[in-house]
Amino acid sequence: MDVHTHFQMELEELKQSLLKMASLAEEAIRQAIQSLVQRDSELARKTLEGEDRINKLEIFIDDRCLMLLALRQPLAVDLRFITSAMKIITDLERIGDQAVNIAEHVMILNEEPQLKPYIDIPRMAELVQSMVRDALDAFVNKDSKLARSVCERDDRVDGLNDQVFRELLTFMISDPQTITRAVHLMIVCRCLERIADHATNISEDVIFMVDAVVIKHHADEQKEGKED
Amino acid sequence: MDVHTHFQMELEELKQSLLKMASLAEEAIRQAIQSLVQRDSELARKTLEGEDRINKLEIFIDDRCLMLLALRQPLAVDLRFITSAMKIITDLERIGDQAVNIAEHVMILNEEPQLKPYIDIPRMAELVQSMVRDALDAFVNKDSKLARSVCERDDRVDGLNDQVFRELLTFMISDPQTITRAVHLMIVCRCLERIADHATNISEDVIFMVDAVVIKHHADEQKEGKED
Repeated sequence: MDVHTHFQMELEELKQSLLKMASLAEEAIRQAIQSLVQRDSELARKTLEGEDRINKLEIFIDDRCLMLLALRQPLAVDLRFITSAMKIITDLERIGDQAVNIAEHVMILNEEPQLKPYIDIPRMAELVQSMVRDALDAFVNKDSKLARSVCERDDRVDGLNDQVFRELLTFMISDPQTITRAVHLMIVCRCLERIADHATNISEDVIFMVDAVVIKHHADEQKEGKED
Repeated sequence: MDVHTHFQMELEELKQSLLKMASLAEEAIRQAIQSLVQRDSELARKTLEGEDRINKLEIFIDDRCLMLLALRQPLAVDLRFITSAMKIITDLERIGDQAVNIAEHVMILNEEPQLKPYIDIPRMAELVQSMVRDALDAFVNKDSKLARSVCERDDRVDGLNDQVFRELLTFMISDPQTITRAVHLMIVCRCLERIADHATNISEDVIFMVDAVVIKHHADEQKEGKED
């Protein structure tokens, strides 16, 4: 097998690892929110335990990317793909952290009676999960159109967040007994909002990677003109 | 000038750009908190305007790093340094975002009477600024001891945050009129906590970069054994 084919296979493996990491992150969000809705603290604890796999995968992928940079010395499109992958796994790892944050607040919330039926929060969570999934699909398929649709969804998440925020403020003002629970729920929403921000960051990287062909030209020019 | 010397100069320039970006991020935090303490919404607006410079510097440095990877094809320590730099600027850019978030909440807070004297929040902000500064110094000087001291300070930030959080909860419970302002202040604290997290992430990268010599060996082994 020649170096080129081997390198293409390595890139393919890298893509599969990234998709795997994204699906673990997505699963962590799903689990954390399910533990809220079903008031299942055992499930929340599982989310905490799952974090380790995501963190290990981050180190594994980071290591693979360094290897590829060192051994294959890729240029232009492949170089940008690999360095973007190294940034994206940081986002995915932090998405995992946020899912853990949610699970921690859920365990506290589950100790007390439920403040209100959860309707908008699961909706927000679903939207956010779809953003994480599509951001990674957009990355591995270099699909800037899909990446743009992820960025657009971020506004809907912010809208839902504002709505829940106002509703919770009303609870707090009318009954101070609800304040602690309302604050924990606000934090859960803020975590979801942060996850959406990470998915948006990933998508912006994708758009930059796919559309900024200018970088390749720039690199070629420098190579021709300035190499010493 | 030979290629090696030139490359060392380019790395030096990269370090200076990183320190510049860190000082802008640090300044944004200082400004945002000063606008809170001095109730100066004009200053808060300046923080919003300053974000653009930080974002532009991120793109500039990212671009430089790609050039260095493509043209100099660095190995081992230098390779890790450059890819770490690419991750660190993402953290610095988000620190800038958080400073903007703070400034936005300050502008809302400044519309109403001050809820309480601000003592712990400026203290938290100073601590957080020192973390950002030292994390970057640790990076450019490859100083893992300093990086560890940054990670340790994160616990103090969390401690201060919990303290302010509890105090604000007490305000809310005893006087519902304070709820909106207290929530805005909670969010300001949470932004500071997130900044501390970013500084901690940077420091963890530094520790990993400095202490994980294992990666170099690993790369060398692969190069000897698997090159095709």
